[in-house]
Amino acid sequence: MSHTIDPSVVEHVNQLADRARVASRRLAQLSRAEKDAALHALADALVVATPQILQANAQDLDRGRANGMSEALQDRLRLDEQRVAASAQGLRDIAALPDPVGEIVRGSTLPNGLQIRQVRVPMGVIGMIYEARPNVTVDAAGLGLKSGNAVILRGGSAAGATNWATVIALRLALAGQGLPEDAITLLGEGGRDAARALMTARGRVDLVIPRGGADLIQTVVRESTVPVIETGVGVCHVYVDRAADLDQAAAITTNAKTHRPSVCNAAESLLVHREVAADFLPKVLTDLANAQVKLHVTPDVRPYAEASSAAYAIASEQDFDTEWLALEMNVAVVDDLDAAMEHIRRHGSGHTEAIVTEDRAAARRFTAEVDAAVVMVNASTRFTDGGEFGFGAEIGISTQKLHARGPMALPELTTTKWIVEGDGQIR
Amino acid sequence: MSHTIDPSVVEHVNQLADRARVASRRLAQLSRAEKDAALHALADALVVATPQILQANAQDLDRGRANGMSEALQDRLRLDEQRVAASAQGLRDIAALPDPVGEIVRGSTLPNGLQIRQVRVPMGVIGMIYEARPNVTVDAAGLGLKSGNAVILRGGSAAGATNWATVIALRLALAGQGLPEDAITLLGEGGRDAARALMTARGRVDLVIPRGGADLIQTVVRESTVPVIETGVGVCHVYVDRAADLDQAAAITTNAKTHRPSVCNAAESLLVHREVAADFLPKVLTDLANAQVKLHVTPDVRPYAEASSAAYAIASEQDFDTEWLALEMNVAVVDDLDAAMEHIRRHGSGHTEAIVTEDRAAARRFTAEVDAAVVMVNASTRFTDGGEFGFGAEIGISTQKLHARGPMALPELTTTKWIVEGDGQIR
Repeated sequence: MSHTIDPSVVEHVNQLADRARVASRRLAQLSRAEKDAALHALADALVVATPQILQANAQDLDRGRANGMSEALQDRLRLDEQRVAASAQGLRDIAALPDPVGEIVRGSTLPNGLQIRQVRVPMGVIGMIYEARPNVTVDAAGLGLKSGNAVILRGGSAAGATNWATVIALRLALAGQGLPEDAITLLGEGGRDAARALMTARGRVDLVIPRGGADLIQTVVRESTVPVIETGVGVCHVYVDRAADLDQAAAITTNAKTHRPSVCNAAESLLVHREVAADFLPKVLTDLANAQVKLHVTPDVRPYAEASSAAYAIASEQDFDTEWLALEMNVAVVDDLDAAMEHIRRHGSGHTEAIVTEDRAAARRFTAEVDAAVVMVNASTRFTDGGEFGFGAEIGISTQKLHARGPMALPELTTTKWIVEGDGQIR
Repeated sequence: MSHTIDPSVVEHVNQLADRARVASRRLAQLSRAEKDAALHALADALVVATPQILQANAQDLDRGRANGMSEALQDRLRLDEQRVAASAQGLRDIAALPDPVGEIVRGSTLPNGLQIRQVRVPMGVIGMIYEARPNVTVDAAGLGLKSGNAVILRGGSAAGATNWATVIALRLALAGQGLPEDAITLLGEGGRDAARALMTARGRVDLVIPRGGADLIQTVVRESTVPVIETGVGVCHVYVDRAADLDQAAAITTNAKTHRPSVCNAAESLLVHREVAADFLPKVLTDLANAQVKLHVTPDVRPYAEASSAAYAIASEQDFDTEWLALEMNVAVVDDLDAAMEHIRRHGSGHTEAIVTEDRAAARRFTAEVDAAVVMVNASTRFTDGGEFGFGAEIGISTQKLHARGPMALPELTTTKWIVEGDGQIR
């Protein structure tokens, strides 16, 4: 990294991290009952502080509008009484989840009588670097607390006032429970250098999780010396095989693209086996056109797009690498299963890939050979989600292979420790 | 990173990584029987190629001596027929271990009928960066193959000829089995830039594991953009509590320090509760003196060191951070359990920490509060080892919290993939 970080910012961040570390030692020893009581206290505090939080949010929105913030971003940033109440309910839901800390993952008694067991313990101090959505502040604080970790939150500056008002309420509630306020720290000053100092506070911070767009995530991955879990970029494909049930395939495609286009598990590309293209494309492109989806098509899809009333353009190679996060979709015809998997290898982001087929051999090859966090047969990519998977919470979706892959919930915020008990064994 | 990597080296390394990636796809689909047969073929090939390997090793040793290589390093580098045979046997032992790939970690049927399961799959391409020991070349190749991964090996240049002779034999054996030679790649050219190119081949290489001294590991951690598992630096403590069985404590201390001082799970520091110092120190320091251990002591330990016939010096603060890897040990008196844990927090490397005590409360606090990969009660730190833990193999000992912590074996070289099967589910 050629850029030098302002030393006073580094010192400030290190001090905050050291205080979070002291708090984390206390958190690691809390019982589930203590943590759950604290989570309910945090929820109560959010409800009580709603007027202050909404006032701060109005300031952020005013500032955003003055700076020309887009309507979509304003919508992500905007809070109302219901959204704050939903965040508070989220904390109560986290309280209802099992405590991952203390779980014995495996263990045995060795031939020499040593008893060994691998136990889940908190990471320690977790840094979260994220963008405009202020609900991430509450989610991360709650998931951190339940998993026994102190969190250092670096939210987007666009939500600065909202995040301050939120974190002040949460810290007061912690103090009211006799818990260290430094369990939840907002990194609100120091500009980009503060985020850089957080990513390079190796030994002080145990893990950094970036949540946001591809640029944010790439910056964190490149510059961080603290271990990172990469989340979220989803260039997800639906491949409609020769042996697909075409009605099912159309329903899955439309759902995967249009149910909530702005999220990472939405599909960006549709691949269709050449043998079913003539039967399948007229129907699915009409469905997509009716849902206002703009198409980016290969030349052999063009006649179908032309006939469908859809808005379309010829796709560039780069389009196939694009996470549209909008009502836009790439459509290509492929020669066979191998060509579909090769396309996914070249353009996929390792998030979620789906095949629609009634052919058992094709399904087996696709699930075995496609390298992604989640591989689906005959289901919408939209199911890649901690809530849908039954985890009860989600801190993000990992697209890397180390530590966690796919939806991450409470256990993914822990590490393990081996405990070895003997009566004087030596080698 | 201010240093620019030679572009031709980057291109060379990327080409090797891309070929390893193609090989890894084949490896991921192999059955256990195919992998085990290949491991036996690799072992046979090593035995057959022993004369060539020993001749190459003699060249490396000649070059080393000419360059003034220390006796200790020469000993690490030196191979003989027995050592090669032991490496070959290591491959057969790996063949006998269960295959981690395909294990179903967890799974369930969701309320909507979707069947989800989390399955162990290979990482893909793993880079190993290590120093002089040529046996790491064979171990890493064998563990990589069994776990379905392609490996790119970057050994120390001091063992260059030995590693080439070894890898040529292994690759020929792979070809003889009809398997891709690129499953095992030696990165033997390009100097330091080659190692740098490997660490920054993000998207091409899935994981880098450094094995060696603290400098090597810190360089990889700082410069790598590929995810890293940090291994090995062990500043391990033995804390002798007020309630210790002192004979047991002396035996554990001497074993932890002297059984094999050059490895990471050897103890570097002894902490003694003030109340038992007068009873314990005369005995243990005499034992350590008899084993030729040089002591680095705090002033309050000095009278006991003086009386023990041990070689000693007053310890500096820095001594307590030092991984001696030799017959040297720090000795300090601490006021109580809290002071011992505070000392370990300040100086430990998160590897292995041991308490010797008969006090149940002290043991419980120590195991709960000390933050290390392995925490022991009444046992020698030397037991932190994949073989001792019953894993049958070890690629290193992780001292980081992400993905793997403590001894790493075959499952730690895998990641997981979620497979979701439905019959048309949409949201």
